[in-house]
Amino acid sequence: MTLPPLRDLLDEVAAGRVSPTDAERRLHAYLRDLPFEDLGFARVDHHRVLRQGFPEVILGTGKSPAQIAAIASRIVDRGQSLLVTRTNTEAFAAVREQVPGAVFHPEARAITLQQKDIVPGKGLILVAAAGTSDLGVAEEAAVTAELMGNQVDRLYDVGVAGLHRLLSAQNRLSAARVIIVVAGMEGALPSVVAGLVSVPVIAVPTSIGYGASFNGVAALLGMLNSCAGGVTVVNIDNGFGAATTASLINHL
Amino acid sequence: MTLPPLRDLLDEVAAGRVSPTDAERRLHAYLRDLPFEDLGFARVDHHRVLRQGFPEVILGTGKSPAQIAAIASRIVDRGQSLLVTRTNTEAFAAVREQVPGAVFHPEARAITLQQKDIVPGKGLILVAAAGTSDLGVAEEAAVTAELMGNQVDRLYDVGVAGLHRLLSAQNRLSAARVIIVVAGMEGALPSVVAGLVSVPVIAVPTSIGYGASFNGVAALLGMLNSCAGGVTVVNIDNGFGAATTASLINHL
Amino acid sequence: MTLPPLRDLLDEVAAGRVSPTDAERRLHAYLRDLPFEDLGFARVDHHRVLRQGFPEVILGTGKSPAQIAAIASRIVDRGQSLLVTRTNTEAFAAVREQVPGAVFHPEARAITLQQKDIVPGKGLILVAAAGTSDLGVAEEAAVTAELMGNQVDRLYDVGVAGLHRLLSAQNRLSAARVIIVVAGMEGALPSVVAGLVSVPVIAVPTSIGYGASFNGVAALLGMLNSCAGGVTVVNIDNGFGAATTASLINHL
Amino acid sequence: MTLPPLRDLLDEVAAGRVSPTDAERRLHAYLRDLPFEDLGFARVDHHRVLRQGFPEVILGTGKSPAQIAAIASRIVDRGQSLLVTRTNTEAFAAVREQVPGAVFHPEARAITLQQKDIVPGKGLILVAAAGTSDLGVAEEAAVTAELMGNQVDRLYDVGVAGLHRLLSAQNRLSAARVIIVVAGMEGALPSVVAGLVSVPVIAVPTSIGYGASFNGVAALLGMLNSCAGGVTVVNIDNGFGAATTASLINHL
Amino acid sequence: MTLPPLRDLLDEVAAGRVSPTDAERRLHAYLRDLPFEDLGFARVDHHRVLRQGFPEVILGTGKSPAQIAAIASRIVDRGQSLLVTRTNTEAFAAVREQVPGAVFHPEARAITLQQKDIVPGKGLILVAAAGTSDLGVAEEAAVTAELMGNQVDRLYDVGVAGLHRLLSAQNRLSAARVIIVVAGMEGALPSVVAGLVSVPVIAVPTSIGYGASFNGVAALLGMLNSCAGGVTVVNIDNGFGAATTASLINHL
Amino acid sequence: MTLPPLRDLLDEVAAGRVSPTDAERRLHAYLRDLPFEDLGFARVDHHRVLRQGFPEVILGTGKSPAQIAAIASRIVDRGQSLLVTRTNTEAFAAVREQVPGAVFHPEARAITLQQKDIVPGKGLILVAAAGTSDLGVAEEAAVTAELMGNQVDRLYDVGVAGLHRLLSAQNRLSAARVIIVVAGMEGALPSVVAGLVSVPVIAVPTSIGYGASFNGVAALLGMLNSCAGGVTVVNIDNGFGAATTASLINHL
Amino acid sequence: MTLPPLRDLLDEVAAGRVSPTDAERRLHAYLRDLPFEDLGFARVDHHRVLRQGFPEVILGTGKSPAQIAAIASRIVDRGQSLLVTRTNTEAFAAVREQVPGAVFHPEARAITLQQKDIVPGKGLILVAAAGTSDLGVAEEAAVTAELMGNQVDRLYDVGVAGLHRLLSAQNRLSAARVIIVVAGMEGALPSVVAGLVSVPVIAVPTSIGYGASFNGVAALLGMLNSCAGGVTVVNIDNGFGAATTASLINHL
Amino acid sequence: MTLPPLRDLLDEVAAGRVSPTDAERRLHAYLRDLPFEDLGFARVDHHRVLRQGFPEVILGTGKSPAQIAAIASRIVDRGQSLLVTRTNTEAFAAVREQVPGAVFHPEARAITLQQKDIVPGKGLILVAAAGTSDLGVAEEAAVTAELMGNQVDRLYDVGVAGLHRLLSAQNRLSAARVIIVVAGMEGALPSVVAGLVSVPVIAVPTSIGYGASFNGVAALLGMLNSCAGGVTVVNIDNGFGAATTASLINHL
Repeated sequence: MTLPPLRDLLDEVAAGRVSPTDAERRLHAYLRDLPFEDLGFARVDHHRVLRQGFPEVILGTGKSPAQIAAIASRIVDRGQSLLVTRTNTEAFAAVREQVPGAVFHPEARAITLQQKDIVPGKGLILVAAAGTSDLGVAEEAAVTAELMGNQVDRLYDVGVAGLHRLLSAQNRLSAARVIIVVAGMEGALPSVVAGLVSVPVIAVPTSIGYGASFNGVAALLGMLNSCAGGVTVVNIDNGFGAATTASLINHL
Repeated sequence: MTLPPLRDLLDEVAAGRVSPTDAERRLHAYLRDLPFEDLGFARVDHHRVLRQGFPEVILGTGKSPAQIAAIASRIVDRGQSLLVTRTNTEAFAAVREQVPGAVFHPEARAITLQQKDIVPGKGLILVAAAGTSDLGVAEEAAVTAELMGNQVDRLYDVGVAGLHRLLSAQNRLSAARVIIVVAGMEGALPSVVAGLVSVPVIAVPTSIGYGASFNGVAALLGMLNSCAGGVTVVNIDNGFGAATTASLINHL
Repeated sequence: MTLPPLRDLLDEVAAGRVSPTDAERRLHAYLRDLPFEDLGFARVDHHRVLRQGFPEVILGTGKSPAQIAAIASRIVDRGQSLLVTRTNTEAFAAVREQVPGAVFHPEARAITLQQKDIVPGKGLILVAAAGTSDLGVAEEAAVTAELMGNQVDRLYDVGVAGLHRLLSAQNRLSAARVIIVVAGMEGALPSVVAGLVSVPVIAVPTSIGYGASFNGVAALLGMLNSCAGGVTVVNIDNGFGAATTASLINHL
Repeated sequence: MTLPPLRDLLDEVAAGRVSPTDAERRLHAYLRDLPFEDLGFARVDHHRVLRQGFPEVILGTGKSPAQIAAIASRIVDRGQSLLVTRTNTEAFAAVREQVPGAVFHPEARAITLQQKDIVPGKGLILVAAAGTSDLGVAEEAAVTAELMGNQVDRLYDVGVAGLHRLLSAQNRLSAARVIIVVAGMEGALPSVVAGLVSVPVIAVPTSIGYGASFNGVAALLGMLNSCAGGVTVVNIDNGFGAATTASLINHL
Repeated sequence: MTLPPLRDLLDEVAAGRVSPTDAERRLHAYLRDLPFEDLGFARVDHHRVLRQGFPEVILGTGKSPAQIAAIASRIVDRGQSLLVTRTNTEAFAAVREQVPGAVFHPEARAITLQQKDIVPGKGLILVAAAGTSDLGVAEEAAVTAELMGNQVDRLYDVGVAGLHRLLSAQNRLSAARVIIVVAGMEGALPSVVAGLVSVPVIAVPTSIGYGASFNGVAALLGMLNSCAGGVTVVNIDNGFGAATTASLINHL
Repeated sequence: MTLPPLRDLLDEVAAGRVSPTDAERRLHAYLRDLPFEDLGFARVDHHRVLRQGFPEVILGTGKSPAQIAAIASRIVDRGQSLLVTRTNTEAFAAVREQVPGAVFHPEARAITLQQKDIVPGKGLILVAAAGTSDLGVAEEAAVTAELMGNQVDRLYDVGVAGLHRLLSAQNRLSAARVIIVVAGMEGALPSVVAGLVSVPVIAVPTSIGYGASFNGVAALLGMLNSCAGGVTVVNIDNGFGAATTASLINHL
Repeated sequence: MTLPPLRDLLDEVAAGRVSPTDAERRLHAYLRDLPFEDLGFARVDHHRVLRQGFPEVILGTGKSPAQIAAIASRIVDRGQSLLVTRTNTEAFAAVREQVPGAVFHPEARAITLQQKDIVPGKGLILVAAAGTSDLGVAEEAAVTAELMGNQVDRLYDVGVAGLHRLLSAQNRLSAARVIIVVAGMEGALPSVVAGLVSVPVIAVPTSIGYGASFNGVAALLGMLNSCAGGVTVVNIDNGFGAATTASLINHL
Repeated sequence: MTLPPLRDLLDEVAAGRVSPTDAERRLHAYLRDLPFEDLGFARVDHHRVLRQGFPEVILGTGKSPAQIAAIASRIVDRGQSLLVTRTNTEAFAAVREQVPGAVFHPEARAITLQQKDIVPGKGLILVAAAGTSDLGVAEEAAVTAELMGNQVDRLYDVGVAGLHRLLSAQNRLSAARVIIVVAGMEGALPSVVAGLVSVPVIAVPTSIGYGASFNGVAALLGMLNSCAGGVTVVNIDNGFGAATTASLINHL
């Protein structure tokens, strides 16, 4: 909530070109008219690309295809890259009518359109996944990270019950600047990975499992209690959130 | 609840040496007088050594030193080996007066006296522990397994965050017939161990940790959701229970 | 992660038949090319039969029929026995096209094909179930144990509310080398069974029940807190896991 | 909240001996002056003996010895029997000064004084307890039931892991009109007992146990999910509550 | 597991009319052939009517219409009354073919057929329900109690938020020998009812509610913590269990 | 449960115009015939408008369209305003036949009919919502508050991750007499709002979110632990309950 | 975060009496120098009395007596009333040295000093408590409400198990403008109270109870699921928070 | 577990200076003798500084002062910096005898000794804390980050209930390269901070709070469900873990 043009306005007031009454009105208007756009059912936050380095992302859950398409077209019209998460082919059909170049990623359940507003990241983000059932969440992370300007390496099906699969990929682990580790069930993979590298590891528990996995709670607790240094955790199935942080780190 | 001497009795009845009335009385008495001994506050189950291969074990928690010593002396008097778990030096003092040869294991918080009733196990039981804080539970398992006639190998401080410590001991893992794995925090060690061996792994979660470890729940859930085959789980901090099963397996 | 042909290679180097550069490349390749096969969406672990005595098992949940069939055919082609768990008739149709001899077990929701790679177990595995609703999980355990080379005895509908049903089968309990006990609701059956035998009891809580059964949590907690010795526990509804451990024990 | 003397008052009004204004006042007063006594920190409910067949019971937790003694003396002064639960020797010292004949039950942590207001129950209440650690709660139930006029049979240390101890007491089970079953850990005893009898079983989970017993939650859930008919449950460690209901049943 | 004809057999042995070998065989057979009937998928417990005063009840959940009909016809053929709970019209169609006189209770989701084996209860069982959404569970309790030979009074929609509805029915409360109180949401009704009467109150939490009701957990906890005496609790939505206990009490 | 006409009746008795017997009968009848109407499946509480300032509200969940329409018509016939919550278009069709003027609010899932019985509130109720997914709950609150006679201001999509959206609306916050804040996920909005105003804030957690939001539990806990003064909380998704309290406050 | 003197400053700029550079600096300083005072370990928020109608309150938990005394003296020096919650006699000794007139309320565990800054509330706040063990929390609410300028009526020991105690106080309930209801165990009292009145009811669950009360969770859930209108809830044992909201309402 | 000197060894073999047998032995030894040091009760991992950029850290919990001092002296002897967390003055006394220059940080409960092995970080790490009670955890983070070579800015007592305190520090937020946000109760601060900056935010829930804070669970859930991008989470009270990740990021 900075006030960037403040000095210009004050110069105008000092020069008598703007009356104090007028300046007061404009200052209040400035505070009121921060750059979000009110669509009635949503306030599109066009300012976010400045504040956070990436435009507002559309969470597909609970929004109709028409609503998603409407917000998507507003974002694309401003020259900003588009990302819709947790969406489906039905919503994609609606979006494609408004945004012809949009792409659908079925595994990741995401719609994207890359535009020129994205700054490339500095290094490589590796996305590791423990089992084949974790691929959906891993792909959400990978697609998000790529759209945000990062180079991504995918290393899937390297669960801890067959360590040799992970150990044989140690040079790929070493090449990454940030590592996202996606795992369900007991969620042990992030601890093992973090013990092998010296970069930040972002752990994503998945809801994969049954019984006492409690839809990802077992994996979440496992990751929060990791005995290895350098592990932080995001919400269950939150591949998008992990990629957002990984991208922030990779752009530092 | 078998009726072993039934035939003898029936022969006596047929031979007229025992009247039907008397036989009926004896049969009922047999059912009533199964071999436990009533001390008022406890019923010592002397029959257990027959049923389960090891005499009744005294859980120290919630019993006074005098009560522990009384039960201990009854067990030892019958020529059975003694094990008191979750106990302390105070109870040990009371026991030693009744059972001079008893030994106290401070790390394991156990009192033992080995007698000649124990059948030796067939192979080696390895007890692995993830961290130095898990030693108490690991020692409870090791001491119990030894008392039950098993040879025990201890492999401590081999948590998954520094895999090389575990991998360097692979020949010791391979030498075991059963493996007990003790771990707190995220409880990932049993999965990794089970992926390296082809013998049963008994996982013991410990209450070591803080915050979202929830006194061992995180480790317990991790172990129940192990992605590796051959892992079964016991209650949090239940080193004794793990050793009991390990010993049963090792005596097969 | 042993290095079996190491000596041969070093002999070759010493003899000058292999250059150090070449040997180094081969050693690294060896580490990298451990015997799993990358199908893109999965890494089939053909090495597992050596490490764990049984080939990789396919968890049906979350995999398409086509994916299951593809992995199944790879496993069978190598002469390894096939087990698909938590699957259905749709997947079976796809598998049967690739693997003509495969068998579907509807109650167990499993697909199997036994080949010659299986070593027979030494004794009998008894699978006991408390109620008729627990049969699906019990059958998963029984079918898995049979495929892994074990003789299996099924003892169903012997819940603790009618003890005579269990007590009348005591000779069958006594004949087993390992016992798997499947129970939902309060999960009391493993404690009672373990009090009657002197072999390991593997307890499988099921999600059968309603209200405060919390989809198997009540049974799981009951089993973890069993007052009887020799009981270990697997995840809710994990008949497969119980059978894997039972088979490991029965092959010792 | 019946209005028993209503007719008398209305007769007086009709006869002109009581004015309507006065009658109105009296009716309101009647509603207001229900028979409880205000001690400032507590309202002693002397009416309860009429409503519920036993005078108000003092829960010792959170009350000072002086407060307990004050309430106790009020109750005894009215000729009502005294029961203080969850109390200690300190409170007993204070009570004994006011109520010389009071008795302290250390195992049950209760203070009692039986007076002539108690109606005897019709049959026998059996209190069964699974382990020696459950005795405190079992004694609270037994002492309460006795004070409420019931004959009590105590059957302790009959846990399900050694069924013969319970089965040998089947004639004592059969003699009871109501059975209270106290158990911690997996809480399986009520199911087994209820399968052997045809009278109501009141299950009392205890906080005995460790780890995944969660201070009695495992036992509570086990009991709520009992597969046997005729089992109802009270709060963890609530021996008093079980006895209150058992006594109500035994007085029907 | 009594041995009633034991004396007769022994007399025969003493008289030489039965050889010891034969007697032994018969005794073992007696123990083995306790009166349950093995249908393959279930063991029908025909003995239960002797042990518990009511024949085995069929829990409809998880059984096919054909299975239900098969068990139902076995029970009815023996002259025993029929109760199927948690069932539906589809199962009813199958049952009616085997058991023409069977009746379906849609609100209670139960199938019944009353035969002459039922002993009438002594007093009245009142079933109170807090809200209209609790009627299904309340009806399960009422139908069960009626089938078990009890007279039932239904008092519905008397939640604590409008106390006058309950207070105006106080004479009906007073007329009951046992009261079943069914309530969801905060589950406060049993406490209030128990404060007004001096008979046992069996509380049934229902899964009615949303959000922090957690499918009946809030009501369950409320009832377990009831501050009123004489309240015991059954599992969430377990109207059948409440009625079983109420009937046992009403038959004392 | 006041007795308003008591004095009149007593005057009649004193004047001899009403006999005591008759008066007694009438008094008892008065107590019995409190103004609720028994429809068999429900007791419509017509008295509530006197006790609580708004007629009985129909919770749509678990009621058939016919039942809803029947209760609705009884309420409207008495000249009372109608509110059906958690309902749908199907029920609306049934209601409209009985109550032609009724209105359906799809976002709020509510049916309303305003009649002349409603007293207008004194100030403005502001309903703030954090995200677009929270609109359903927010609208339930807004529609309820309007029907209860309050002026409502809606401020939607003002989550804490983009504070400028909230801060720019501070004058609208300041204009309210009571504020309802609806938020899912971490539920942080009520704390921030309460720090900016000096009127009561009623927080409504929503079940919006995934993973560790546990269907609104995270938001609920966040709100209960609010570090800001003046925040009270209602059940998850309970927009109706929040509006009821807000209206009570706004009518003081 | 309004900018009240903005116009004055702009007039100065327009008049040339303040340079734009200087004005810019002052505007930024204004934003920075909001009226809190930095003590190093705490930032005393002297502005709160303007924003929220009551000065900052000191939460005693986790602060040393010296820290409490230091903050207290800063608050009192500004002429603001003092409230320290969750404190003890030790802290009071330290405070009294700095603030001679301060008063300690042992039951409420609070320190207060009323100064002239408090605006009196409009009506009466009634604080009802279910049991004698709830008095501490009830007193925290009562003392807080009084210090904030409200007249308070205390109605204690009116739990729902003896309804007549509550019903006899109905005129006191009716006299209140806001009601705070404090209850532990099943937490049913707020529902019953809210059914009797037409003013807001603020429910405070207490941690009183044992076993399945889970330190107040049972009461909390009961209150969140209240079937009565007009009930909102605060955190367990949060008497202070309830009083803050009640006072805000009473000052409207 | 790389094999760095492999080429050298192979050259020796090729040159005949090392026999194959000897080379094989050395290779195996290399794998076995990875650089950890076995103290009996612990294996000090001196290799970690290479793998992870910081030497092994000693978790004080559950270790005796003597054990801590022994490990500390081994680490310092190798020229590595020392960090002991969750420790106390007693342990410090023992350490200081072995490591004279060690420093104790009472608020952070940490012992440190900085040596020359630490590489300085690139930017500034800001540690923000919501309340004064969160200082201990915040200081653990700050002290750890400083010891790991980072410049640290502390911003304490900026909870969301008084937003102006946070907003006035926006330039300090903007200056940071990574931000650690420590908060208890509802844990809302990380969401608000992350909405204001474009760098990674590491959220640390604290166990500060009472009642429904559940020792930090409410804050943990709030942070996991943060609606703001760029937030990752560590375990409750894990200031050390947050600083480790922050330092890894700041060294990229």
